[in-house]
Amino acid sequence: MKAGPSQEDIRRHNLGTLLRFVHLRGPASRATLAESLGLNRSTIMALTADLTAAGLVREELPRGPGRRAGRPSLVVRPESTRVYVLAFEVGVDRVVVARVGLGGVVLDRREGVRARDADPGDLLGVLAAGARSLVRKAGSDAVCVGAAVGFPGVVRRSDGAIMFGPNLDVGDPRLGDALSRRLGLGIPVSVCNDANLGALAEHARGAGVGYDNLIYLHGDVGVGGGIIAHGRLLGGEEGYGGEVGHMIVNPGGRTCACGSRGCLEAEVGERTLLAHAGREEIAGRPGRDAVRDVVVSADAGDIDAREALHRVGTWLGLGVANLVNVFNPGLVVFGGTLRDIYLGAAAQVRSVLATGALAAPREKVKLRTAALGDDTTLVGAAEFAFADVLADPVQVLARLKAPEDTPV
Amino acid sequence: MKAGPSQEDIRRHNLGTLLRFVHLRGPASRATLAESLGLNRSTIMALTADLTAAGLVREELPRGPGRRAGRPSLVVRPESTRVYVLAFEVGVDRVVVARVGLGGVVLDRREGVRARDADPGDLLGVLAAGARSLVRKAGSDAVCVGAAVGFPGVVRRSDGAIMFGPNLDVGDPRLGDALSRRLGLGIPVSVCNDANLGALAEHARGAGVGYDNLIYLHGDVGVGGGIIAHGRLLGGEEGYGGEVGHMIVNPGGRTCACGSRGCLEAEVGERTLLAHAGREEIAGRPGRDAVRDVVVSADAGDIDAREALHRVGTWLGLGVANLVNVFNPGLVVFGGTLRDIYLGAAAQVRSVLATGALAAPREKVKLRTAALGDDTTLVGAAEFAFADVLADPVQVLARLKAPEDTPV
Repeated sequence: MKAGPSQEDIRRHNLGTLLRFVHLRGPASRATLAESLGLNRSTIMALTADLTAAGLVREELPRGPGRRAGRPSLVVRPESTRVYVLAFEVGVDRVVVARVGLGGVVLDRREGVRARDADPGDLLGVLAAGARSLVRKAGSDAVCVGAAVGFPGVVRRSDGAIMFGPNLDVGDPRLGDALSRRLGLGIPVSVCNDANLGALAEHARGAGVGYDNLIYLHGDVGVGGGIIAHGRLLGGEEGYGGEVGHMIVNPGGRTCACGSRGCLEAEVGERTLLAHAGREEIAGRPGRDAVRDVVVSADAGDIDAREALHRVGTWLGLGVANLVNVFNPGLVVFGGTLRDIYLGAAAQVRSVLATGALAAPREKVKLRTAALGDDTTLVGAAEFAFADVLADPVQVLARLKAPEDTPV
Repeated sequence: MKAGPSQEDIRRHNLGTLLRFVHLRGPASRATLAESLGLNRSTIMALTADLTAAGLVREELPRGPGRRAGRPSLVVRPESTRVYVLAFEVGVDRVVVARVGLGGVVLDRREGVRARDADPGDLLGVLAAGARSLVRKAGSDAVCVGAAVGFPGVVRRSDGAIMFGPNLDVGDPRLGDALSRRLGLGIPVSVCNDANLGALAEHARGAGVGYDNLIYLHGDVGVGGGIIAHGRLLGGEEGYGGEVGHMIVNPGGRTCACGSRGCLEAEVGERTLLAHAGREEIAGRPGRDAVRDVVVSADAGDIDAREALHRVGTWLGLGVANLVNVFNPGLVVFGGTLRDIYLGAAAQVRSVLATGALAAPREKVKLRTAALGDDTTLVGAAEFAFADVLADPVQVLARLKAPEDTPV
């Protein structure tokens, strides 16, 4: 039980709210801000002045055809090229590093294919080299305000330690600390579960905008999940929440990498789909392309591929039914390889959902594919990395600038 | 995105916080309140004066041996006998009505056995008659500030409509509205899922005090659930969240009252336990006593009873494992008939949990029986009924008193 906030808390909250507004919704006039945030225009002016002084936003004349006669209303615009974060996606088959500006603009990115038998020790070097090359290309007045890595495994929230990642060995469980030291930018590097980040991303900028309760399911060899409940990422006691891939849907079923049997991941994962389709020994590259090939073949009438999608769709539908009963979400979003699998098995998923979930929570739930396509993890990592500066904009920026700006 | 609160919002929040503190933790000195709420003593004095004027608390000399020499510090005490709510529990086998005072004191109660073949239309009359007799016995200066009914079924949050209640027919889906009209106290009567209320109760006053993430599982013929995530009851889009009894744990398993098969409720419910134990045709009363008899028999060495608890414990353990993976709770609480079933099958539940859940979320989770015993639903209904007055104490009380106190 905590008492109400102080005046300083409120100012900080309002600064963060204004910055978050232009970060997520784009440039806005003072009038729009005043109306949307429920503050008067003099307060908006004062907040904008503080954020401008901190170099987080700028005010300028509106661009484009929206201009009208008379004195134009100034527009508050995030300093997208100056204030940025580093977002990392570590997938089983690919690694992406991006420099993402305030406002969510991907300013620059490096992407590489990762071999499944790659030396785990190499990962850190790949991430650090990619980030350094991006930082070098940033302008001399640009400020990096955060960094986060999306990772397909179980990550402890308190310290970012990777507790379990059966599909990808990274060598060092303290990947974030090691990367932060290598980068030497004076900022911590957070590590988060990839599907948790996907949920944040789709909620902030994707299919889930406007939904307070949604479930994001992500396929990348394994199956992960991220749950937004009451507008907030469900973390549980230690940040492990959302491990829906290890919900047992078929007791005694296929063996899972976690040691259990019949987990959702074991029944609907990439390897299982390929096995059902008779493609275990697939030549060339497994992974997302192989999954897409199965869906394309099924569309073209391949019986084995259709049967494989039907089987996987049955378990996926059962998993979704359970989650609908437990959470009463407004939306379920399928991302990663599950995006393709859902597209190929939607009828079966919906059919099992219709019999497996109670009518009341099922009635209004929508099923959708990820609007951010293959970048759910990356966009989520950027949003996570921006969280601190959005919570306390001026303070965070002052702290970052202190080492060089303060005369000693 | 909402801007920070106004001064009036903060005052209201602080009044509610102070009242909630003494409501949940009992009488407290101004010094304790100042320290616990992080407010200075003059603010505490002002808030206490407002709450005293509204008749919600009173200040008095501390009782008992704690008194020391010198000027004693006054203690702020909730007006438990003056400010009360009506709490109703509608179970499959019993109906309870209680008058619960601010501070959570059960001032008076009426309890009746309900026959499973009772006329649904009778329920409203039973509830109304019980409540009226309690209200008549309250003092003439007593104020009823809320009322809530706990019900074993799926309830829509927006209007309290009962959407699904396979184990108990109440005749009218708008039970709350009908009861409010019958009582004529000028207050609405909320209807809530019983297990959701159990979660609130154990979180506020039971085994879950201090836990921000917990799962409450409730057995009463069917199986319900209530989930506290980040300190708040998980409701989902329309308040149907927490229907863990209809999570499918055994696809193709026993037929469930919901029409699906292999739901947790179908595999661990009262009827299934009795069937496994060869007691379908049990003479006398089914229900909680029959479940307890199975547990007692198993303890005494009855092979059938042991086997039945083992089978039910297996599915219960699987359900708990799934919930631990999905939510990463700090605590799982078993209430209603599941309290007895868990006590009789704890080893099996823990064994399945150990193999079915990931190590990271499993490591620290505690399994406990409900500390509030058979009164989880009733206590939860009282807490729910107090919610409005705790959110905005003075306003709510002023509104309630207006009809008689305001000269027209």
